[in-house]
Amino acid sequence: MANRKDVAKLAGVSEATVSRVLNGIGPMKESTRQRVMAAAKQLNYELNAIAANFARGRSGNLGVVLPTLPKVHLFSTHYFSEILGGIGEAVRAKGYGLLLLFRDPEEVFDYVSLFRTQRVDACIVLGASALPTEREAMERLAGENLPICVMDQRFEGLNICSVATNHEQGSYEAVKHLIHNGYRRIGFINGSLQYSNSTDRLAGYSKAIQEAGIPYDASIVYQGNYSRTSGRRVANSVYEDLHKLDALFVANDRMAIGLIQGLREKGVQLPEQLAIVGFDDSDAASMTEPQLTTVKVPFYEMGRQATERLLTRISTSEHENEQPPFHEILDTQLIIRKSCGTVKDQLTQ
Amino acid sequence: MANRKDVAKLAGVSEATVSRVLNGIGPMKESTRQRVMAAAKQLNYELNAIAANFARGRSGNLGVVLPTLPKVHLFSTHYFSEILGGIGEAVRAKGYGLLLLFRDPEEVFDYVSLFRTQRVDACIVLGASALPTEREAMERLAGENLPICVMDQRFEGLNICSVATNHEQGSYEAVKHLIHNGYRRIGFINGSLQYSNSTDRLAGYSKAIQEAGIPYDASIVYQGNYSRTSGRRVANSVYEDLHKLDALFVANDRMAIGLIQGLREKGVQLPEQLAIVGFDDSDAASMTEPQLTTVKVPFYEMGRQATERLLTRISTSEHENEQPPFHEILDTQLIIRKSCGTVKDQLTQ
Repeated sequence: MANRKDVAKLAGVSEATVSRVLNGIGPMKESTRQRVMAAAKQLNYELNAIAANFARGRSGNLGVVLPTLPKVHLFSTHYFSEILGGIGEAVRAKGYGLLLLFRDPEEVFDYVSLFRTQRVDACIVLGASALPTEREAMERLAGENLPICVMDQRFEGLNICSVATNHEQGSYEAVKHLIHNGYRRIGFINGSLQYSNSTDRLAGYSKAIQEAGIPYDASIVYQGNYSRTSGRRVANSVYEDLHKLDALFVANDRMAIGLIQGLREKGVQLPEQLAIVGFDDSDAASMTEPQLTTVKVPFYEMGRQATERLLTRISTSEHENEQPPFHEILDTQLIIRKSCGTVKDQLTQ
Repeated sequence: MANRKDVAKLAGVSEATVSRVLNGIGPMKESTRQRVMAAAKQLNYELNAIAANFARGRSGNLGVVLPTLPKVHLFSTHYFSEILGGIGEAVRAKGYGLLLLFRDPEEVFDYVSLFRTQRVDACIVLGASALPTEREAMERLAGENLPICVMDQRFEGLNICSVATNHEQGSYEAVKHLIHNGYRRIGFINGSLQYSNSTDRLAGYSKAIQEAGIPYDASIVYQGNYSRTSGRRVANSVYEDLHKLDALFVANDRMAIGLIQGLREKGVQLPEQLAIVGFDDSDAASMTEPQLTTVKVPFYEMGRQATERLLTRISTSEHENEQPPFHEILDTQLIIRKSCGTVKDQLTQ
């Protein structure tokens, strides 16, 4: 019986091209496709992707495990859409499919059987939190040395690949910028503390005010949940506290935008009465009035790098188990617009 | 040898639950998972998902084929992110995986082999255009009666399942609203005509002005490419043509937002000097100054419905080939904000 090598030889292409054509992994020149199909037909050779993948223990898919968040249009948030964009670019370049799977954060997700059953060859975990169920799922993984990468969430003491951004440093620089420009009474709106990047942002905020000799005031540290609605809700408390606030650092742009909309409706002059700095540098940050000063996070690049590192890992070595986990930390960048009430050349640092 | 039924019986759960546990398709109660795993172990039964899927000719995945668009962060556009959100919700509810595959619009994508090689059980095509390569890919499909649904793009004469929105009607109502409010010199910024929804919007615009006895003036019909940058670029031409324009209908919100930003930078008073209506009702529409009047498109719902109909189709019948293709057309809704210079109770219709 003819094999893939025979088909490649007859069609005058590489074996990889034969696989891609027969597995429907695009893109592919139409003339090449037809040549391969003709050769396969002539040799009575038809590769069934699942059978072939089963035989070699590969699915041809990178898995991405996403949380199920009630009422949130996941793909419409800057965070998930940009990371997925970067993952998509890298996956496409390597001819892989991108298999999205949803987990319920209340349940312990079984990553191991995802591999055991060969649905994916490697896997990226997005939006993981420090909930006990998620911690337990990760603990089960840690011993297995599977090609899994956790994005933007730290699990202390567990040795799993990760790609993250420096939330503490980014927050520290944002708050320091406000201090350098004369603000002293600086509040903070954080997201849920079940995410390590929320605690990191709090650490960055605390470090900056502490260095400047400003005491930590819990009454101007507010709690949102990273949604625009929660920013609008917090606007009510902020409005009542305006007498004790000069500036606010907000843990993501969505909440900052909700806050701005809520305060503008109450007639608050921005940035004159309150300076605001967001976090993310989403598209919308340049659409608000005033435009939002914010901390740019390289989400797209994080997705791309995590994917490339994972796919390189599984393709270059049959012994991925022997490689130590990788840990990447990418830098943020402060983007100065109008909402912080300062302009670039006032920067004194 | 024990089979799935035996495991289900011993664990006291359904066979479907056994499959879901062993295939790692979450969510699943931890206690249930452990009971199934214990039963499978006791009976020496381990299902390999790929082998099992191969045997029954199912992958457990819904495929979504996306275009490769240079420089566009696909998942960060309202259009793709909302449709994918709706697809994701339906896929998750049915315990399927969502396999994203990228096609190069210049190449003829081989949908048929995607099924033949059992990578997907059903497939949704997003962002298809009327390019000859895409038309050819669809023609190859049409004869096969595969469970494929094309989203929001019409292929005249081909009998393939589709879910779309009524772009012509939505555009007609938007322009009619402007006419009812006294505007006569109404321009139009369209996207690329390679998409059938662009030609539909042009038809809706033309119908509305024609009914009002307003002659079609090609010099105030502008061409963008659905990006914010293209809206900014068109702002230059619009600025020069301000003397012959009262209002502009813009084929999507992104271009409208770029236009607004470009015109505001030139000091144009909006909506006083120019009324603007967008299309989509993206998140950003309520963030601009003035807030954007726009045509709401139920993208999320379109994705959900297409997925549910496809998955029901393949699960209820072994003879899906015998079912005629479905065609859904969902309605749009005019959302009146500030940018059109009118308020709701001025509506005279």
